[in-house]
Amino acid sequence: MKKALVGIIMGSSSDSKIMHSAATILDEFGVAHEDQIVSAHRTPTRLSDYAKHAEKEGFKVIIAGAGGSAHLPGMIASHTVIPVIGVPIMVYNDKANSDKFKFSAFGGLDALLSISEMPTGSPVVTVGVNKAANAGLYAVKILANEFPELRSKLKKHKETQYNSVIKESDEMRKIGLARFAGKKK
Amino acid sequence: MKKALVGIIMGSSSDSKIMHSAATILDEFGVAHEDQIVSAHRTPTRLSDYAKHAEKEGFKVIIAGAGGSAHLPGMIASHTVIPVIGVPIMVYNDKANSDKFKFSAFGGLDALLSISEMPTGSPVVTVGVNKAANAGLYAVKILANEFPELRSKLKKHKETQYNSVIKESDEMRKIGLARFAGKKK
Amino acid sequence: MKKALVGIIMGSSSDSKIMHSAATILDEFGVAHEDQIVSAHRTPTRLSDYAKHAEKEGFKVIIAGAGGSAHLPGMIASHTVIPVIGVPIMVYNDKANSDKFKFSAFGGLDALLSISEMPTGSPVVTVGVNKAANAGLYAVKILANEFPELRSKLKKHKETQYNSVIKESDEMRKIGLARFAGKKK
Amino acid sequence: MKKALVGIIMGSSSDSKIMHSAATILDEFGVAHEDQIVSAHRTPTRLSDYAKHAEKEGFKVIIAGAGGSAHLPGMIASHTVIPVIGVPIMVYNDKANSDKFKFSAFGGLDALLSISEMPTGSPVVTVGVNKAANAGLYAVKILANEFPELRSKLKKHKETQYNSVIKESDEMRKIGLARFAGKKK
Amino acid sequence: MKKALVGIIMGSSSDSKIMHSAATILDEFGVAHEDQIVSAHRTPTRLSDYAKHAEKEGFKVIIAGAGGSAHLPGMIASHTVIPVIGVPIMVYNDKANSDKFKFSAFGGLDALLSISEMPTGSPVVTVGVNKAANAGLYAVKILANEFPELRSKLKKHKETQYNSVIKESDEMRKIGLARFAGKKK
Amino acid sequence: MKKALVGIIMGSSSDSKIMHSAATILDEFGVAHEDQIVSAHRTPTRLSDYAKHAEKEGFKVIIAGAGGSAHLPGMIASHTVIPVIGVPIMVYNDKANSDKFKFSAFGGLDALLSISEMPTGSPVVTVGVNKAANAGLYAVKILANEFPELRSKLKKHKETQYNSVIKESDEMRKIGLARFAGKKK
Amino acid sequence: MKKALVGIIMGSSSDSKIMHSAATILDEFGVAHEDQIVSAHRTPTRLSDYAKHAEKEGFKVIIAGAGGSAHLPGMIASHTVIPVIGVPIMVYNDKANSDKFKFSAFGGLDALLSISEMPTGSPVVTVGVNKAANAGLYAVKILANEFPELRSKLKKHKETQYNSVIKESDEMRKIGLARFAGKKK
Amino acid sequence: MKKALVGIIMGSSSDSKIMHSAATILDEFGVAHEDQIVSAHRTPTRLSDYAKHAEKEGFKVIIAGAGGSAHLPGMIASHTVIPVIGVPIMVYNDKANSDKFKFSAFGGLDALLSISEMPTGSPVVTVGVNKAANAGLYAVKILANEFPELRSKLKKHKETQYNSVIKESDEMRKIGLARFAGKKK
Repeated sequence: MKKALVGIIMGSSSDSKIMHSAATILDEFGVAHEDQIVSAHRTPTRLSDYAKHAEKEGFKVIIAGAGGSAHLPGMIASHTVIPVIGVPIMVYNDKANSDKFKFSAFGGLDALLSISEMPTGSPVVTVGVNKAANAGLYAVKILANEFPELRSKLKKHKETQYNSVIKESDEMRKIGLARFAGKKK
Repeated sequence: MKKALVGIIMGSSSDSKIMHSAATILDEFGVAHEDQIVSAHRTPTRLSDYAKHAEKEGFKVIIAGAGGSAHLPGMIASHTVIPVIGVPIMVYNDKANSDKFKFSAFGGLDALLSISEMPTGSPVVTVGVNKAANAGLYAVKILANEFPELRSKLKKHKETQYNSVIKESDEMRKIGLARFAGKKK
Repeated sequence: MKKALVGIIMGSSSDSKIMHSAATILDEFGVAHEDQIVSAHRTPTRLSDYAKHAEKEGFKVIIAGAGGSAHLPGMIASHTVIPVIGVPIMVYNDKANSDKFKFSAFGGLDALLSISEMPTGSPVVTVGVNKAANAGLYAVKILANEFPELRSKLKKHKETQYNSVIKESDEMRKIGLARFAGKKK
Repeated sequence: MKKALVGIIMGSSSDSKIMHSAATILDEFGVAHEDQIVSAHRTPTRLSDYAKHAEKEGFKVIIAGAGGSAHLPGMIASHTVIPVIGVPIMVYNDKANSDKFKFSAFGGLDALLSISEMPTGSPVVTVGVNKAANAGLYAVKILANEFPELRSKLKKHKETQYNSVIKESDEMRKIGLARFAGKKK
Repeated sequence: MKKALVGIIMGSSSDSKIMHSAATILDEFGVAHEDQIVSAHRTPTRLSDYAKHAEKEGFKVIIAGAGGSAHLPGMIASHTVIPVIGVPIMVYNDKANSDKFKFSAFGGLDALLSISEMPTGSPVVTVGVNKAANAGLYAVKILANEFPELRSKLKKHKETQYNSVIKESDEMRKIGLARFAGKKK
Repeated sequence: MKKALVGIIMGSSSDSKIMHSAATILDEFGVAHEDQIVSAHRTPTRLSDYAKHAEKEGFKVIIAGAGGSAHLPGMIASHTVIPVIGVPIMVYNDKANSDKFKFSAFGGLDALLSISEMPTGSPVVTVGVNKAANAGLYAVKILANEFPELRSKLKKHKETQYNSVIKESDEMRKIGLARFAGKKK
Repeated sequence: MKKALVGIIMGSSSDSKIMHSAATILDEFGVAHEDQIVSAHRTPTRLSDYAKHAEKEGFKVIIAGAGGSAHLPGMIASHTVIPVIGVPIMVYNDKANSDKFKFSAFGGLDALLSISEMPTGSPVVTVGVNKAANAGLYAVKILANEFPELRSKLKKHKETQYNSVIKESDEMRKIGLARFAGKKK
Repeated sequence: MKKALVGIIMGSSSDSKIMHSAATILDEFGVAHEDQIVSAHRTPTRLSDYAKHAEKEGFKVIIAGAGGSAHLPGMIASHTVIPVIGVPIMVYNDKANSDKFKFSAFGGLDALLSISEMPTGSPVVTVGVNKAANAGLYAVKILANEFPELRSKLKKHKETQYNSVIKESDEMRKIGLARFAGKKK
């Protein structure tokens, strides 16, 4: 799949520290994507432009990450019928604050609620806080409705997860939890 | 579309008081759906059965509503690669409590977090608390990737929303906010 | 002041049940205002149009009320340099829910954070949840910088508040708290 | 007691950093246990298998630790009548995130509510966030109903705690709080 | 079983409005219980007396319900090695407040945390807010370790729950969600 | 005691619906008090006047109730060295809102934190949300340091509470929890 | 503009670590300001003095930062009709605590609610937690009503923000999200 | 004052890292105190013993610090009529957890609510999270009712605070906020 099927956008360049995981997952599944910064607040006029661009390019899913008041996912969804997956971001990206405060004030709850609590008639869905990888994986699940090879890859992916747990569990069972935890540290 | 493309499930019969809005939206868009109760806690063995049934029937989206600890959406997603949309439910459904307490203890925050905060590798997405209608609409957005007529209907739906706001706004502008609010009450 | 100096907007007609208090306060101070519904999600293309309209009309303050994910105040602020005062709204306006749940899930915290936690560079200010009257009064404070007669009225308003408290306090002191409370019920 | 009476499970190998305290307590009381990783989301089909295994082995208590959406304790409880003690875990275990964020987004509240707020008819109990040691101790309390020697050890354990507090208190009383705190740092 | 195996206590007579569900479940399973009010704050000297009484009577589980600061479960657990199950209660029981406020201030979060967040070494477990029925069912699970007939009854209970869900689900599937929901109201 | 030893103040006349319980307790213990409304926001200049008045009259405790941003207790404490007990109030007192929303947005958490989280060097203490009666009782405890007859009355009060619990508990024990709860409803 | 139009105040010298961003923004726009520490709790008598000083100097906006119970913004607003912008501060400034705890207990929620939840009739507005820069920018927006050159600068400022996003986005689009994120770290 | 008038107690030796500030303040005011560890959960039988000891020694105030479920302040208050001031503690004191998690799960909210939300009839008051110094200062305020020299010292203390703010403010005003903040870092 050379043509980008997924548009990844985020509100600020600092969000890339979290959002790159979505790109990595899509790469893993061989799904092409296009990555941009679209700020609802600093580039509001680009919202409808981006929506038109996304429809013209034939994107089938948009992944939108944002922190704090996190308006980006909902505003993009207002401009297009392409399904939007929001990623609430908890990351320190404010130069105005002191170096000592690396975490955001509300642990991502602000972004989570701002993305999920859209009014009836304007749906956006959200994954968990900072779970960009899950947004990538969910995009693959949506695309798999049309691309059966992705469905096979998803089943393979589930198997790999299963086997990796079994292997770790067998080790824990054998050496016991205390020793297992000691190795992990 | 006679064949069901969407499976709607919920953890308890009382959840139907919220979840019926998802069905109504799908009916409005002419998308057939099948509705069931699948309790993660009371019928755990049905989870994999339901997943197999959903794949055999060719469902392309599963909408899963649950309240409280709300394990249903995540557990169904663990058993299948079909995209799952969770609906966190805040509804009083506990006969053990007194009649006077009609609301749940945590305003749906428990269900919202239980659905959204899935570990990396196991994606579920969620809409807002009690926003079953939005889950239905998002399912239509996913299906519209394959069914162009749904995309047209979604654009029509957006137009209708737009026009309804304009009409109300024009009335408010004309008669003023105070009189408008008086009529609303 | 016949020309509207303040634009009052809200995301939904049901918000008028709270927002009318802003209009009432402005009327009390003789400040003309124009009232509209501008939905960030249902009428996103109107955001920049409204911003242009507001600048052309010479509005000096915009009061924007919204509930849930509450993107309206921030999005309007992104399109204009006119100061925007947000009003986080906690009101039941979702027909999809059962009649029994009249309150919103998060007590307005979702709207409060969505309005206040704007990124650096994109300021919106907020009053308390449902405090539309305070938004109106704050708009008068801003306008009073240019219109000295409003400053006098504000001082008069403070005096009236002061006297009303004194009067009630004197009654309480005389008849005692228990009897005073009995009369209040 | 050579035969394992307690099954300790957790959703991920990183949870071992917290859960090993449960094992340590059981070892201290001479209660044999078996330790495994059972992921509700990555190995869902193992849930009923584990339940059967637990019943066949004659486990009398299952301790289940999980973070985030934390479905493991509730799902295991759905498959068996053996009492399950949940441990809500707050630990950073997501490689997708930046190195800088070592704590989970919601301080363990997500896991706590997901474990505690089970629907009527499907009981799980929970200890405090990261309190794996207390889960181990509570398992001993349950077992002590059948094994009187454990009851004696529990009373001894209480005495030891008592004496250790008295000793520290006597030191504090003698040297004063300020000096005592200085030594602690 | 004529001899009481479970002690049910609560901090205030008004808690009986929630706690009676624990008694009902125990009655259903034929487990005898003794019910008392023991207030940690109004009858603190009774705590150790009750603990001695409970041990003398041979209680094997204590169910302790309390609201607000909810010290009862933790304090009883401090005085005995019998396993204690806490029930955080959200109920209006303060005559000092106005009739209009029937719910407690923190939705039971205060009681839930006060019960769950016990220090290491002093375990109490908790069920969900107001889930007294689940506390009763969990007590049966603990007792079933010693009384095999209870284990059989628990499995029967699970079957009954299973069948009741299947029956409701079949009806929903047949008549559809919208009509099903209509009947529920 | 004819001379008022306690000053009761509150931020608004509607707070009297909660605060009268403080007066009732003081009356019960025969402690004279003076009741006033002092609004930190509507009558700010009265704060230092009230502090002077309180010192001149010889008040030994000030009980200050306030809701929402609840600045009154902290501001009074800034003006005097008399100990201040804050009462966080959760009461609907805003005519600007719709009749349907009788509860405040944050369940009193806003007032509780605003009163408790005073900076080092400026102490205020707080009782629980709406617990005006407890503020009254705590004032009596403070006064009892100087007035031994109050100490006796407090011990009597404790005894009465004790006996009332015992009496209710004996009834519950005799007739059983289910019947007891039935009578309570 | 040589004459100070904005008064910046804060409750404690440690707040300067956050508040200096407001000064920097005002400097950037060429708006003169005067900076002081006014503690509501340690210098309560200065509140009305400061209000008089602010009016005499002709300040048109007051920016007030405070943490914890954060009474300063509301109390200043009670003493003057000049519009006040509050800045809720989350900063560790308590020497009484151990060195290890650099963050405040409630993530700034305490300060946010104490500033926003002012009673009807006493408006203060707030920006997000630690968003002092936004308070500065909002002050410029208010002043721009009277000083057209500030309006031009604000539009220029918006353009600069826009261009900076476009430039970063173009880079991300070209090199891809993964590489872009790698450079950011 | 050689005889101890204040009893300082805490639930665990690690709490001394916070509680020593209470001792320091009392020392500063020349108020003798006695310091002990009394664990509600590890030494429950000592609660009534401590209460008797406190009354016999003639303590006039008890300061009780505790974290997590924080039952100590309320339980001591249940055993005595001496006024108790609670200090909710947020400190990492659990060896069972990994070294990486130095903060408690709920930011002290658990302890704050467990201390403040006592039932009507059983008053405890609380200061803010970790504000042990304020508890010490409040104890002095209570004692000052009987010891006039403490009242003088409190007024002196207020003056010192006042002057220290004025001095810092004058410096800030002179050198400007930006330079002042630079020096602080």
